[in-house]
Amino acid sequence: MKKEDYNKRSIDLHRKHNGKLEINSTTPIDSTDDLSLVYSPGVAGPCMAIADDPEEAYNLTIKGRTVAVVSDGSAVLGLGNIGATAAIPVMEGKAALFKKFAGLNAFPICLDTQDTDEIIRTVKLIAPVFGGINLEDISAPRSFEIEQSLQDIGIPVFHDDQHGTAIVTLAGIINACKVTGKELSDLKIIINGAGAAGIAITKLLRCQDTDHTKGSCITVKSIIVCDSKGIISKDRDDLTDVKRSLLGFTNPNNISGDLLTAMQDADVFIGVSKGDLLEAKHIETMADKPIVFALANPIPEIMPEKAKELGVAVIATGRSDYPNQVNNVLAFPGIFKGALQVRANRITADMKLAAARAIAECQPDPSEDSIIPEALNLKIADKVAKAVIDNYNK
Amino acid sequence: MKKEDYNKRSIDLHRKHNGKLEINSTTPIDSTDDLSLVYSPGVAGPCMAIADDPEEAYNLTIKGRTVAVVSDGSAVLGLGNIGATAAIPVMEGKAALFKKFAGLNAFPICLDTQDTDEIIRTVKLIAPVFGGINLEDISAPRSFEIEQSLQDIGIPVFHDDQHGTAIVTLAGIINACKVTGKELSDLKIIINGAGAAGIAITKLLRCQDTDHTKGSCITVKSIIVCDSKGIISKDRDDLTDVKRSLLGFTNPNNISGDLLTAMQDADVFIGVSKGDLLEAKHIETMADKPIVFALANPIPEIMPEKAKELGVAVIATGRSDYPNQVNNVLAFPGIFKGALQVRANRITADMKLAAARAIAECQPDPSEDSIIPEALNLKIADKVAKAVIDNYNK
Repeated sequence: MKKEDYNKRSIDLHRKHNGKLEINSTTPIDSTDDLSLVYSPGVAGPCMAIADDPEEAYNLTIKGRTVAVVSDGSAVLGLGNIGATAAIPVMEGKAALFKKFAGLNAFPICLDTQDTDEIIRTVKLIAPVFGGINLEDISAPRSFEIEQSLQDIGIPVFHDDQHGTAIVTLAGIINACKVTGKELSDLKIIINGAGAAGIAITKLLRCQDTDHTKGSCITVKSIIVCDSKGIISKDRDDLTDVKRSLLGFTNPNNISGDLLTAMQDADVFIGVSKGDLLEAKHIETMADKPIVFALANPIPEIMPEKAKELGVAVIATGRSDYPNQVNNVLAFPGIFKGALQVRANRITADMKLAAARAIAECQPDPSEDSIIPEALNLKIADKVAKAVIDNYNK
Repeated sequence: MKKEDYNKRSIDLHRKHNGKLEINSTTPIDSTDDLSLVYSPGVAGPCMAIADDPEEAYNLTIKGRTVAVVSDGSAVLGLGNIGATAAIPVMEGKAALFKKFAGLNAFPICLDTQDTDEIIRTVKLIAPVFGGINLEDISAPRSFEIEQSLQDIGIPVFHDDQHGTAIVTLAGIINACKVTGKELSDLKIIINGAGAAGIAITKLLRCQDTDHTKGSCITVKSIIVCDSKGIISKDRDDLTDVKRSLLGFTNPNNISGDLLTAMQDADVFIGVSKGDLLEAKHIETMADKPIVFALANPIPEIMPEKAKELGVAVIATGRSDYPNQVNNVLAFPGIFKGALQVRANRITADMKLAAARAIAECQPDPSEDSIIPEALNLKIADKVAKAVIDNYNK
């Protein structure tokens, strides 16, 4: 189906339902007695219990099973900076996915500001009602600072555009290695795109999260990251702080040049920037049995048919109409479900790596067209949640 | 039933359900096609439609039928300043009432700050997702400033502790006049308590909201307001700005003294402060057929049995176990339902007065024990909504 048709049908669906969420009461309010328990005077009981012991909020309110989906509308889908109000349909959709895949309540919080400090402060202020915060569609590099600044507020804060994509990508690469006979630790990887997803994938695959437990890391041999100006190297004088920080654990031989130069002998290409980019020469310069994650949306860096013609061994995209879809819905529901169950105060690198391994293990016998589980498989979230719980260290 | 029993049973209920709300998806997510409409790529359609015309948020998202119940936990029930987290059960309860009585979604926003400016700013920032804001349990005088400062944000902002109580009280007084044969415009009223409710009742009954339409006012003959120090008069040098502002339209003869002095020849006593206050001498000094609204909770200023013994013609309280309960649930659901239906940008004095009249008219043949409709009467909200809609001037 054409993109325009999806858009039109989606508008019709949204107009028919006036959005996609509803908030319901879970307790009856049919008598004066009900009213006295749900509201005044009885509700003073739960209030006082929480005042005495704030942890009781997890038992006596929705907090323990409720996530805020927070955005400022600055980087929505491929649409860019459309603002808080226009971002609501995405955040409602995300909330609907939280319920469908993890059984969690989620509520859209669309903030009418794009000031980094103000977003950080506002998330802190609204945190009491929530068990976790899913940051969504906030533009880089502000998203990095916002997420980082919120790691100590006592509940997990997770920027899905970074980590969700990184986790599912790692799951796919684990299984792509199985299919091609490559070793994860031998991989030379090229990442095109140094935004939220590119940076997070780089860090996860090079084990650069600061909070991993010793020995839990997955580390590939080398990563070179490219942005629109070419390879990120020490010779560049136009790098942002975030991009510069990559130099410590990428591009070990300090190669300079364009994407084509970078791709020589690479085992894996991961594209998280613009589509329709890779030509025959790019694929031909790669190592034997090349693996390509062409994640630009809706137009991938290379179409799967063409990639296969050119000898790509495994091709993954972000699209639901091809095999091997890298879809964040495989990760975030189970991650939050697990984190909320143990009342984790953050999502650690161990939990992310465990989630990636759990997703990979959901395809115990992967083929080139089945390295990643189906997005609609409702069993994945529970397996991810279990892995997250098992790898949570207080 | 004893208060302690209600509290304990309420804790059990809250613990069993982990709070009282759930957020559900209203559209199916059972196929890849569903996923493409609810989320990526189709959701770009509604996003772009709203980016083109922000008013479309009312049609394509939950905005048009969703209210934020906002508190800072500074003045919760009779419990006082218990903070944001301990206030959650009340705000969830309020949200449950919004769904039950008005069919609206409502979500608790409990803010971890008691700084006036920060609360004002935060409400502005979270406003995009909401069609209206119900302020709740925020201590005076901050609540006045917060509500006032938010009147121009484009959606209705309504502090229920002020106006909800004022509207239902006025409805009760209209019918108490019918029962006693008194004329509203002749009433001499004493209000004990100069907090949120006392100030709002005074303003509504003296038509002091600035935005009323000419001729729509209900104005009683005179009001004297008392606080814990006695009558609010020009002779006092300890008045806050808010209390001082009452002098322009209360206490016309500038009487000084205590509550007993104030009550001489009064037709109506309205208590919105502390309970167990009125003795025989207070009632005996009132005019013929005295009307008493003893709204302190859970212990009224005078118990109904005693009031009747002393010759009170009509006694109303805040309690569900006596007739004539002044319960805000008669007002706020219909007010927001009506306001959201016409996409009002504020709740005007006309709308409040219309709501009060509509509630009164729900008891077309009031007796001394039925001046106010039953709180659980589900038909009231629609009648209030209709009155609000009919009296909305853009």
